[in-house]
Amino acid sequence: MTKILIIGGGGMVGQKLARELAISGWQGQPAEVTLYDVGFPDNCAASSRRLVGSLAEDGAAAGLAATRPDIIFQLAAIVSGEAEQDFDKGWQVNMFAGWALLEALRSEHEASGGTYRPRVVFTSSIAVFGGPFPDQISDQFLSAPLTSYGAQKAVCELMLSDFSRKGYVDGISIRLPTICVRPGKANKAASSFFSGIIREPLNGREAILPVSDSVRHYHASPKSAVGFLCHAAALDTGLLAGRLSLNLPGVSCTVAEQIEALGEIAGADTVALIRSVADPEVVKIVGGWPQDFDSARATELGFKAETSFSEIIQCYIDEDLGHS
Amino acid sequence: MTKILIIGGGGMVGQKLARELAISGWQGQPAEVTLYDVGFPDNCAASSRRLVGSLAEDGAAAGLAATRPDIIFQLAAIVSGEAEQDFDKGWQVNMFAGWALLEALRSEHEASGGTYRPRVVFTSSIAVFGGPFPDQISDQFLSAPLTSYGAQKAVCELMLSDFSRKGYVDGISIRLPTICVRPGKANKAASSFFSGIIREPLNGREAILPVSDSVRHYHASPKSAVGFLCHAAALDTGLLAGRLSLNLPGVSCTVAEQIEALGEIAGADTVALIRSVADPEVVKIVGGWPQDFDSARATELGFKAETSFSEIIQCYIDEDLGHS
Repeated sequence: MTKILIIGGGGMVGQKLARELAISGWQGQPAEVTLYDVGFPDNCAASSRRLVGSLAEDGAAAGLAATRPDIIFQLAAIVSGEAEQDFDKGWQVNMFAGWALLEALRSEHEASGGTYRPRVVFTSSIAVFGGPFPDQISDQFLSAPLTSYGAQKAVCELMLSDFSRKGYVDGISIRLPTICVRPGKANKAASSFFSGIIREPLNGREAILPVSDSVRHYHASPKSAVGFLCHAAALDTGLLAGRLSLNLPGVSCTVAEQIEALGEIAGADTVALIRSVADPEVVKIVGGWPQDFDSARATELGFKAETSFSEIIQCYIDEDLGHS
Repeated sequence: MTKILIIGGGGMVGQKLARELAISGWQGQPAEVTLYDVGFPDNCAASSRRLVGSLAEDGAAAGLAATRPDIIFQLAAIVSGEAEQDFDKGWQVNMFAGWALLEALRSEHEASGGTYRPRVVFTSSIAVFGGPFPDQISDQFLSAPLTSYGAQKAVCELMLSDFSRKGYVDGISIRLPTICVRPGKANKAASSFFSGIIREPLNGREAILPVSDSVRHYHASPKSAVGFLCHAAALDTGLLAGRLSLNLPGVSCTVAEQIEALGEIAGADTVALIRSVADPEVVKIVGGWPQDFDSARATELGFKAETSFSEIIQCYIDEDLGHS
């Protein structure tokens, strides 16, 4: 049975991935799924095993690696807003814990005489990019992050790439678009409002918009995120020809276009629940983020996302509205 | 008096930089120059102080930072060939020691109430790039290294950039072309032969060429390297607009063109001392290296290099031939 470890399995995307694996299994077969996180929600997805802990703790990575998972999804991270406020915590968790995981997997690889070489799917982010940008960011565009979170993700990509090149693990980094619409509560990510302005009004609650509605950004649904992860876990990584970091497909639109799509689906009264209150810190962080991608490589490799923001809203309505 | 610390001050470029500072001072004034390295050559350049040690040792970075240098040149590294052979050593020295230095400088920054913020000039490398390449690598081209050395350099760039963005240090990373002609003995860098095929014949000794003479690569002289370092140390980093890593100017030429220039300067008997013996390991590493750059940004910022390989050979003849 395929052994799957989801680090960050208590988070929103980790939970959706666990649900999908519980329903569909892995490539048509049941899988042994372990969720690892600092905590889990009350309505936690069914899984073979749940482990509470943090990769940043001594020995945690070695303990996980010793179970020799076939596939490891590394979703855990200090989010962008928090990593920006707490420099130490961001680097310790987002970078050093990532290093500890890779080193622990390398030890298992060596202990196995080279036969153990797990697939590692690292969730990177479009925050690895920093402006100024071309209209569309190509697959050859430099990574020059303007946040600590983006720098930490970029560093982990480079480490994973080198461990993979050496054959210790079989890695791939997927740079997720902003995942929208996130169900549940707002988090400390600077991008949290992109979901909030859709989710809160759909639930009859007021939402704060901290930036101008002319801000353009790049989105995909949680359902697409789960699809990206599963596709990355099954992909022939030889096709990546040594460039293991991928920009993924997504929907590029302005906040005004997000709101327009919300109005078409849910009406003007719903839209009226959005209130503009500028937050200079969020304006500054988001102002350095990318707006659009030409994700030719990932598209050729079979990664798929929504093609309009209406579809993204519909995905939230189908999967999450009234389900929490 | 400006306090200058040269980490890797015992190395070839560090020594040339120390000699230049001893002769010209810093911006017309005498400077207090400290050289730090695991060892020094017998004919060591004059300096105010020499310290033997390794940044990779516990407490070493804190000890250096406590002296609060105004300018820190970080030249020390495990070279490419050795980092490729010794994975642990490469990452520990090239990445973790770099992190330790930045953390130690941040502590001093904080202890000073934010007034201490040294200029850190990090010598990165064109090894941060990996093929396939366009004919000329632009300033916006991605860093996708194909060696551990390149990955470690790219990670240090990202860390330095984030520490600088936060205001803890005032950093700049310069991606040196292959420095050629290196005086003295061959080292473990995979690029060592680019110098060897010029230096050894000029000294009447045989040289081994481990790759095809159609290999194209990108070079600058040790004299240009010293010029790059001094220019980077004095530059208004505000002009970098947050992108602190620079591709530098250099001479792009094939090995055949290198040899042709040698023949023109030193004659056919000298060229006859070059013997081709293919080394598959070197062929593989060098095959993933860049061949040419459009270094528009650095050129605009005033960085200067040679414009022909003949000039590079002449620089060796003037500075080093018969001086060791």
